[in-house]
Amino acid sequence: MKLQVTQENLNRALGSVARVANTRNTLPILANVLIKTSNNRLSLSATNLDIAITHYIGAKVSDEGSITVPARLMQDFINSLPDGVINLQLDDSKLKIKTDQYQSTVNGIAADDFPVMPAITTGESWTVSASTLKKGLQQVVFAASNDETRPVLTAVLLHTSGGELRMAATDSYRLAEKNIGKNNNDIHLLIPASAMHDLLRILGDGTDDVHITHDDQQVLFQVGDVELVTRLVDGKYPDYQKLIPTSFSTEATLKRADLVNVTKVSSLFARESAGSVTIELSEENQTLSIRSVASQLGENTAEATAKVSGEGSITLNSKYLLDALSVLSSDEVIFSFNGKLEATLLREADNKDYNHIIMPLKG
Amino acid sequence: MKLQVTQENLNRALGSVARVANTRNTLPILANVLIKTSNNRLSLSATNLDIAITHYIGAKVSDEGSITVPARLMQDFINSLPDGVINLQLDDSKLKIKTDQYQSTVNGIAADDFPVMPAITTGESWTVSASTLKKGLQQVVFAASNDETRPVLTAVLLHTSGGELRMAATDSYRLAEKNIGKNNNDIHLLIPASAMHDLLRILGDGTDDVHITHDDQQVLFQVGDVELVTRLVDGKYPDYQKLIPTSFSTEATLKRADLVNVTKVSSLFARESAGSVTIELSEENQTLSIRSVASQLGENTAEATAKVSGEGSITLNSKYLLDALSVLSSDEVIFSFNGKLEATLLREADNKDYNHIIMPLKG
Repeated sequence: MKLQVTQENLNRALGSVARVANTRNTLPILANVLIKTSNNRLSLSATNLDIAITHYIGAKVSDEGSITVPARLMQDFINSLPDGVINLQLDDSKLKIKTDQYQSTVNGIAADDFPVMPAITTGESWTVSASTLKKGLQQVVFAASNDETRPVLTAVLLHTSGGELRMAATDSYRLAEKNIGKNNNDIHLLIPASAMHDLLRILGDGTDDVHITHDDQQVLFQVGDVELVTRLVDGKYPDYQKLIPTSFSTEATLKRADLVNVTKVSSLFARESAGSVTIELSEENQTLSIRSVASQLGENTAEATAKVSGEGSITLNSKYLLDALSVLSSDEVIFSFNGKLEATLLREADNKDYNHIIMPLKG
Repeated sequence: MKLQVTQENLNRALGSVARVANTRNTLPILANVLIKTSNNRLSLSATNLDIAITHYIGAKVSDEGSITVPARLMQDFINSLPDGVINLQLDDSKLKIKTDQYQSTVNGIAADDFPVMPAITTGESWTVSASTLKKGLQQVVFAASNDETRPVLTAVLLHTSGGELRMAATDSYRLAEKNIGKNNNDIHLLIPASAMHDLLRILGDGTDDVHITHDDQQVLFQVGDVELVTRLVDGKYPDYQKLIPTSFSTEATLKRADLVNVTKVSSLFARESAGSVTIELSEENQTLSIRSVASQLGENTAEATAKVSGEGSITLNSKYLLDALSVLSSDEVIFSFNGKLEATLLREADNKDYNHIIMPLKG
């Protein structure tokens, strides 16, 4: 293997793939990135056996070949080099990296030992715009669970329902659902949230379309020169749509920034009580007030002006409230509930595509 | 106690003092900040028994009084409030904090229980410009040791020698010394490096003079409306000046940015070897080259153009080299040594006020 690439391209490709490589894995080669020529392209790949990412870049290839090298060292090293041409040459299992000023030898492991994800040979295929997919994922993915004892809840559900493509995630304390547009396919995919975090990183600020292909076991996302394959989660996702309330006894519409501020201040006094804050809506005063009590430290009440219909109070985890508010993008938000014991709904005032539900705490 | 202050002033004062308060202390009141009126001023103080900081701000005082309240909660809370007037009122040991939108009650502990640092009644006094003191501390303080088993090395030495005021710090692997100007007093103070970190924070971008007063036990720094008192370290500081070499067999002058870059890249390959890199100067090629070897991962050689006199190589800890380079402010730096076993000296090419010594590793 012998070739020339630009530092910019090699650095970008390592930035896409290296994070999937993992030194904590029991298989040492999984800490490596696979570098492989193919005509005048170079592919860089990394995998943790659940997720695999490949990034293709242009290269001036003199001799074809392939090798795997430690991903983190390679990424840090190439990232520290100045702009310009980098010469790569393989000598047995040693990769020689040369620029005007720098000469390095990185010890590799033969490419034959690198695990290959099975290809998706047959399967449905469709397209989503990168910006729509990115916005939707950002609003949904954090609501997935980290608890590996209930694997389905660690997934993001991507599915069609009523001719619309929807994403949903829940950890059973909160639930986020986003409608990302019309789609007439029959889709029902449980995609690991961790893979969706990697996809978000790859989507970056790109404006390309994303091509999605799946079979029963895996799904492939193709964005520009990058491919991400992930296994699907097996299991039955809860029928979440019936959990989203549709009518409310109590509702407030207010500036998102105001609700963020009063919640942040209140949350300071809620550290002892696992984030618990009580929100009270007053139709008479047209206010939303939020109260927190720290038995040792003191207490706090904060108030914001709101358009309120109905009266009532509900106790929530302020962290979940702040998480949800941070992904709503409208100036005004609608906060609705039915009594102390039922789910609250947060929405954007000017857009019904996104629903965020938070379950109440016992007040 | 009843008064009004602006959010801006109260926030600034809490920013100065709160970090000294410490919840890990065995004495719960040391996690608190002391708030005390005095005519139309309010003082905020915190102490960890070694260091005490007091910040004075203007206030509209209706009733005099004092109380201590949890420093971290108070700082986070006041910092989250919007600009404007804050009303403080004491009700038994409860501090009521009120703005248009927010009402809080913070539980306090009576001010009588707050430890008071002994005052410096007699002692020498002199003045240094804040910018000179800040620059000097930044170049010196990180070289002090964290090892509490040799207390004198955890201090910064501030002393006069030959009519000049000098600062020095060493952890026995490296040594930094800065000359900060003429001074005819007889000064020899061992000041805890931790107190100097706090002083750096207080100095900020201020241009005030710093008034320094000391007795045998303590030293007081007064900067604008802030006072910092710290105990002094007891012990005999090593006679470091004789460790600074004055003539060299091998010397390179080169761009600081170049030396930073080649050292950073080399250090990536030095992770396995505790940062060890070998620097070689070539008079023939007029180059400085730096080499690192990671037995498992590979190796790297990087080269920079330099004005070189003499030949030779030396092995150093790349972390210490990068630390030193990050506080040199000149475009060009001078790197000098006498063979493999003696200390290297780093200096600014245009300024002889700062000496940085690094001891070699066994190559």
